[in-house]
Amino acid sequence: MAKHEKFSYGVSPGKGKNYVQLSHDAGVEASAIREILSVTQGRPEIISLAGGLPDSGMFESEKFLSILSDLTHGKCLDHKGRKIEAGDLYQYAPSEGVPFFFETLNAWINKTEDFGTLENENLLVISAAQQGLDLFAKAFIDPCREASVIVGAPTYVAELNVLGGRSGNLEIIGIPLDEKGMQVEQIWDLPKEKLAKCKYIYAVPTFDNPAGTELSEKRRKELIDISNEFGIPIIEDEPYACLRYEGKKLHSIMHYDDIGCTVRLQTFSKMAAPGLRLGYMAGSKELVSRIRVMLQSSTLCASSLNQYMLAEFMRRGWLEQYWAKVIPVYRERMNAMLGAMDEHLTPYGSWVKPKGGLFVWLTLNEINGDALFREAIKKNVAIVGGSSFFPPNSDKKLHNSARLNFSKSNPAELRTAIERLGAACAALDKK
Amino acid sequence: MAKHEKFSYGVSPGKGKNYVQLSHDAGVEASAIREILSVTQGRPEIISLAGGLPDSGMFESEKFLSILSDLTHGKCLDHKGRKIEAGDLYQYAPSEGVPFFFETLNAWINKTEDFGTLENENLLVISAAQQGLDLFAKAFIDPCREASVIVGAPTYVAELNVLGGRSGNLEIIGIPLDEKGMQVEQIWDLPKEKLAKCKYIYAVPTFDNPAGTELSEKRRKELIDISNEFGIPIIEDEPYACLRYEGKKLHSIMHYDDIGCTVRLQTFSKMAAPGLRLGYMAGSKELVSRIRVMLQSSTLCASSLNQYMLAEFMRRGWLEQYWAKVIPVYRERMNAMLGAMDEHLTPYGSWVKPKGGLFVWLTLNEINGDALFREAIKKNVAIVGGSSFFPPNSDKKLHNSARLNFSKSNPAELRTAIERLGAACAALDKK
Repeated sequence: MAKHEKFSYGVSPGKGKNYVQLSHDAGVEASAIREILSVTQGRPEIISLAGGLPDSGMFESEKFLSILSDLTHGKCLDHKGRKIEAGDLYQYAPSEGVPFFFETLNAWINKTEDFGTLENENLLVISAAQQGLDLFAKAFIDPCREASVIVGAPTYVAELNVLGGRSGNLEIIGIPLDEKGMQVEQIWDLPKEKLAKCKYIYAVPTFDNPAGTELSEKRRKELIDISNEFGIPIIEDEPYACLRYEGKKLHSIMHYDDIGCTVRLQTFSKMAAPGLRLGYMAGSKELVSRIRVMLQSSTLCASSLNQYMLAEFMRRGWLEQYWAKVIPVYRERMNAMLGAMDEHLTPYGSWVKPKGGLFVWLTLNEINGDALFREAIKKNVAIVGGSSFFPPNSDKKLHNSARLNFSKSNPAELRTAIERLGAACAALDKK
Repeated sequence: MAKHEKFSYGVSPGKGKNYVQLSHDAGVEASAIREILSVTQGRPEIISLAGGLPDSGMFESEKFLSILSDLTHGKCLDHKGRKIEAGDLYQYAPSEGVPFFFETLNAWINKTEDFGTLENENLLVISAAQQGLDLFAKAFIDPCREASVIVGAPTYVAELNVLGGRSGNLEIIGIPLDEKGMQVEQIWDLPKEKLAKCKYIYAVPTFDNPAGTELSEKRRKELIDISNEFGIPIIEDEPYACLRYEGKKLHSIMHYDDIGCTVRLQTFSKMAAPGLRLGYMAGSKELVSRIRVMLQSSTLCASSLNQYMLAEFMRRGWLEQYWAKVIPVYRERMNAMLGAMDEHLTPYGSWVKPKGGLFVWLTLNEINGDALFREAIKKNVAIVGGSSFFPPNSDKKLHNSARLNFSKSNPAELRTAIERLGAACAALDKK
């Protein structure tokens, strides 16, 4: 409606008195991936390897419905053995989490994870890991001072968006990855002034997005040494660790942490369902308590309904059953894609076979990833060019890369998609 | 666990190399209300008038369950007449909202509200109004510059928390309320330098929390004049407008807005259920588009499951049915409390009878609200002292006040609670 459009928010200072200055935080760039996804919308002929979504067809919708039915009809008991009242599902939650979910989660972490016994004050329920990334940046990066943050190069695009929105005085330091993940040993050699202003190190140790790599045990330990030496906290973000298709589970970074410098972020988006918007943050009591207060100002609390449903889902052991269902399916898809890549992409680049997760990272010999995206769309396949995953001012040669997702398409579609991508590479290679 | 506690986050600079400076944003104070609520936990003998929650017993849990059943079994059609797939409920949502919810919401607003036809670009789904308050502050207040924001005195405590966390350079200007709401005409007389750095005016026009007042039509129009004159945007936050117990609905501030200076925030916490964590922001396309990008970094999106369930709830007309159910119950409670106040509190203070909402604001003649809170707890009734609702540096005389909630207790309990509060006032009056 036109009447809402005459008031200018910070775009044209010449417009006179109806001019309002937006804060620099409002300048955050929309994710390139979002724009890429919009190109593919309403074009069913395009096979998309551009997303990063779990397969909707495999969510446990019947199980969640049966849980809501039992919760609504007083058939579920909470952690203290008391009947859960239907009305509680729809009420406000405490900022730290609904007690039933909070206690179920804490018990599950203590049983399942390798970072020892968490006390209640070490744990916070968040509206999925993204909220943790946002609040952590808010807690640690004073936008009015010089600061730096260390991330992988490449790294998770939404963490780059968080950092990009935080401050004009922030340097994002990208540490290159190899087949064993972030080359953390390079951090020792960073200039002292960059380390002195470094607020934290962001790591996705297991089946990195976008690189698909797993950080080696040696490097996990070394991250702790670096953190201890320079007094820099570590965010350990583990969205994909539950999706392991081969190899033995490694210890978490937090497992090696004796001083409490690690903060664990865990979303349930891949462990259960992204639509629930739930995750947790674990760390020192002091930090968790401060972030809880910030969360209260940010969203008050996560959805009670979703917390009750997920708690009961976990209590019934259905989380692990869900993983057991999706893992073979995703493994087959990954292998189908990797086989097709051997056949069609070998002349144009190289890749590390992932042991889990949702992505294969393609390093191209000569072709720019964004150019490949545009050529691939003409051939009805969508990918994400590598440039989206690197901090600003990265070496442009690194943009000869692309992220390929295999979780949304069946093996036949994936083979077709990779064949088309090979044709797109061939077309560019001739130019 | 002790191992997480040795790493110090910004508290004791003397601790050597494991010292990390937290940003000033991390210094946000926990809400005093939270602390008050913790005093009352596990003490069933206390009747609490301290909260602000809808009555859990009245949420439409059976209706929500029937909706989830229909959604899961393919019995619901979206806005384009297509069958909704169960898997979509659990998938990521677009940042602006699940299309089915977004379109249902937009159509509902256009039919129900008085601010004209919204186009899609004017609308954004948020994780309840709190997220809107947080993102709006982030968009408008540059923490590295001088700024001011105008709020009511008293005003919503969680907006004060948002502003308190935003910046050390922010002046919060409180404009006193009378029985017709914020005395907006006083804004004209503010010093020019305060107006020049003013980023927005925050208003809860209908059944204010905590004051219970309704902003008069004259003042709504005057806010638009002020906004136009000084180029200051207005947030119109309307959590309680659906809970009207008497009187005719007034036009929204946005209705009088011809230049697009108003941003509407609307939570569904009182309109349907707080546990869903859903609301919307409506405003100019430019602003909404920027806030959408910030929302993406903050939480990615609101819960898909909850958006589908609420959309179908709205589509079936159950929102209005819910209001029709709760309004007579809350009206009866309010009247019971007001009757008891006439009987027991007349010597100690005065109050404006609200026409809706969840609160009565008690202005005390001589008694400090926090002192009354402490005395009242001894007599097994909990209230919130007025000091929580005023910006820092407000006139301490204003803290002779308290917020009384009537939505969680039945009439008999409310009469007992007010009788006890009268006894607490009497005890303090004698001192």
